[in-house]
Amino acid sequence: SANGAFMSPNKQTDWLVLNVGGKLFSTTRSTLVGKETDSMLARMFSCNREGSDRWNNSMDESGAFLIDRSPRYFEPILNYLRHGELILDPDVNPRGVLEEARFFGIQPVVDILELRIQKEEPPGDLSPLT
Amino acid sequence: SANGAFMSPNKQTDWLVLNVGGKLFSTTRSTLVGKETDSMLARMFSCNREGSDRWNNSMDESGAFLIDRSPRYFEPILNYLRHGELILDPDVNPRGVLEEARFFGIQPVVDILELRIQKEEPPGDLSPLT
Amino acid sequence: SANGAFMSPNKQTDWLVLNVGGKLFSTTRSTLVGKETDSMLARMFSCNREGSDRWNNSMDESGAFLIDRSPRYFEPILNYLRHGELILDPDVNPRGVLEEARFFGIQPVVDILELRIQKEEPPGDLSPLT
Amino acid sequence: SANGAFMSPNKQTDWLVLNVGGKLFSTTRSTLVGKETDSMLARMFSCNREGSDRWNNSMDESGAFLIDRSPRYFEPILNYLRHGELILDPDVNPRGVLEEARFFGIQPVVDILELRIQKEEPPGDLSPLT
Amino acid sequence: SANGAFMSPNKQTDWLVLNVGGKLFSTTRSTLVGKETDSMLARMFSCNREGSDRWNNSMDESGAFLIDRSPRYFEPILNYLRHGELILDPDVNPRGVLEEARFFGIQPVVDILELRIQKEEPPGDLSPLT
Repeated sequence: SANGAFMSPNKQTDWLVLNVGGKLFSTTRSTLVGKETDSMLARMFSCNREGSDRWNNSMDESGAFLIDRSPRYFEPILNYLRHGELILDPDVNPRGVLEEARFFGIQPVVDILELRIQKEEPPGDLSPLT
Repeated sequence: SANGAFMSPNKQTDWLVLNVGGKLFSTTRSTLVGKETDSMLARMFSCNREGSDRWNNSMDESGAFLIDRSPRYFEPILNYLRHGELILDPDVNPRGVLEEARFFGIQPVVDILELRIQKEEPPGDLSPLT
Repeated sequence: SANGAFMSPNKQTDWLVLNVGGKLFSTTRSTLVGKETDSMLARMFSCNREGSDRWNNSMDESGAFLIDRSPRYFEPILNYLRHGELILDPDVNPRGVLEEARFFGIQPVVDILELRIQKEEPPGDLSPLT
Repeated sequence: SANGAFMSPNKQTDWLVLNVGGKLFSTTRSTLVGKETDSMLARMFSCNREGSDRWNNSMDESGAFLIDRSPRYFEPILNYLRHGELILDPDVNPRGVLEEARFFGIQPVVDILELRIQKEEPPGDLSPLT
Repeated sequence: SANGAFMSPNKQTDWLVLNVGGKLFSTTRSTLVGKETDSMLARMFSCNREGSDRWNNSMDESGAFLIDRSPRYFEPILNYLRHGELILDPDVNPRGVLEEARFFGIQPVVDILELRIQKEEPPGDLSPLT
């Protein structure tokens, strides 16, 4: 288990590392599982009765869980799971975050971003969405 | 102790590393504890009589203290603790820094940012705060 | 093989790391090969009958495949291969992504970006394209 | 000495690494000492007669010199020491660089930035400087 | 030699790593030497008859060649050497790239940037060039 790698005198928290597209994110299992219990992330990182990974997630050499997605657009989603607010910097394209929210199944973030993108686009605009 | 990892001929400073969401920040205990003595950071890193960690903070494999928060928005807060000025780049959403300031209990930064965000929002604006 | 370095209890995925200009990207062979089957990336990372690399790609010390190109402009292309949308942040020059799309032979991205850049440039503009 | 870690067939240069707030900067002693001879950086990294560090600077495990400051705002200052021009990107807050210039005692940079910030602020503006 | 560190079944390419101011760039000798044959980079990395480094370039512990310059502004120059186009993002100050182009002796990039900066500045503007 990757968690054995950490010296955690504080037993309440259960630390893990995600390798999202090559960038490492340190977080806790409760952040990933606790807030959006129906999301893919919650299902990926919830434990079964034996306490082992049900999903057989792939790990890199350092014990981080591999996820083949964009780290840049994952970041605001992880922050949302930490404190419940979706916060985007002005230099981040909200469509990128929307793709990740759909992939990870974080429905409240999908709803916020679809509304926001809809507002920004004039009706009848058929240009490529890039 | 993580500090044993450093060769510190200069005994006055007490270096430590924070792993905030996967990014490492090098700083000193006096920066974290000295300026905002009532903040969560000060409480986390102040020593008890025996000089050991009272809070049993979790550490990663390298001995860095794990904090499950956003590194991007933590950075201006750490700079504030270093020199007392809150400085944000134009591409940083102040709401992100506000969330961290609240979490870490840095009240002067909370006050500055709440005032600033209030000014930028027209009254009666009910749009999602993202 | 670099893939031997990963503990992959989930046998369906075939993880690899690209070292693009010095930055590491974690992804899967199916992402690189599956969507744009005629691209250079697909040809570089498709396996022959023996399951070994046909192209004798160079690897760095960690087993990542070396590609002598820009990591910054490669990132949106890799995301496109992951989910089929081309998403650029406002602080990214689309010409940089176009150069990489041409190099890697991702024709749909080339088409989208050429159209977009053409629209932004007034006809008769002869200024340097930087 | 940290410099013993480098294979330097070229004896003229004296390479060292700074760990500024957790980010590593490779540079030479002559860059830090040569241009602004009265700065704190020059004093920190000038050698005494025996050729050893007079200041007993703290080092991290890799032998990099620890400095408890912002890496983002230190970067343009290090570039200034390299070639004598102060160059800021549009997404960098000049106040952040000013704080570092004052801390490191790089007076020409302090002067340029104080003038520049003064110009940008309308007289009588009493809003928080963030 | 640093190149011995790479497993390169493909003998045509000659991979090396540059440590520019602390950031690592992976590239090939042919990129550095082939396009701008009179540049300092070409002279630094061309081999003599014995195939060894003529310039006795300094290397860091990992075998990367040390260059005491800005990584941020070096990046578009390396991309230029890769494909012949100078591409700048909107958040990059062209003056920073110009300084590096002059240092490395990449004359076409110097010419493009001097023209571009000249156009942007109104004549008679005597303000600091930062």
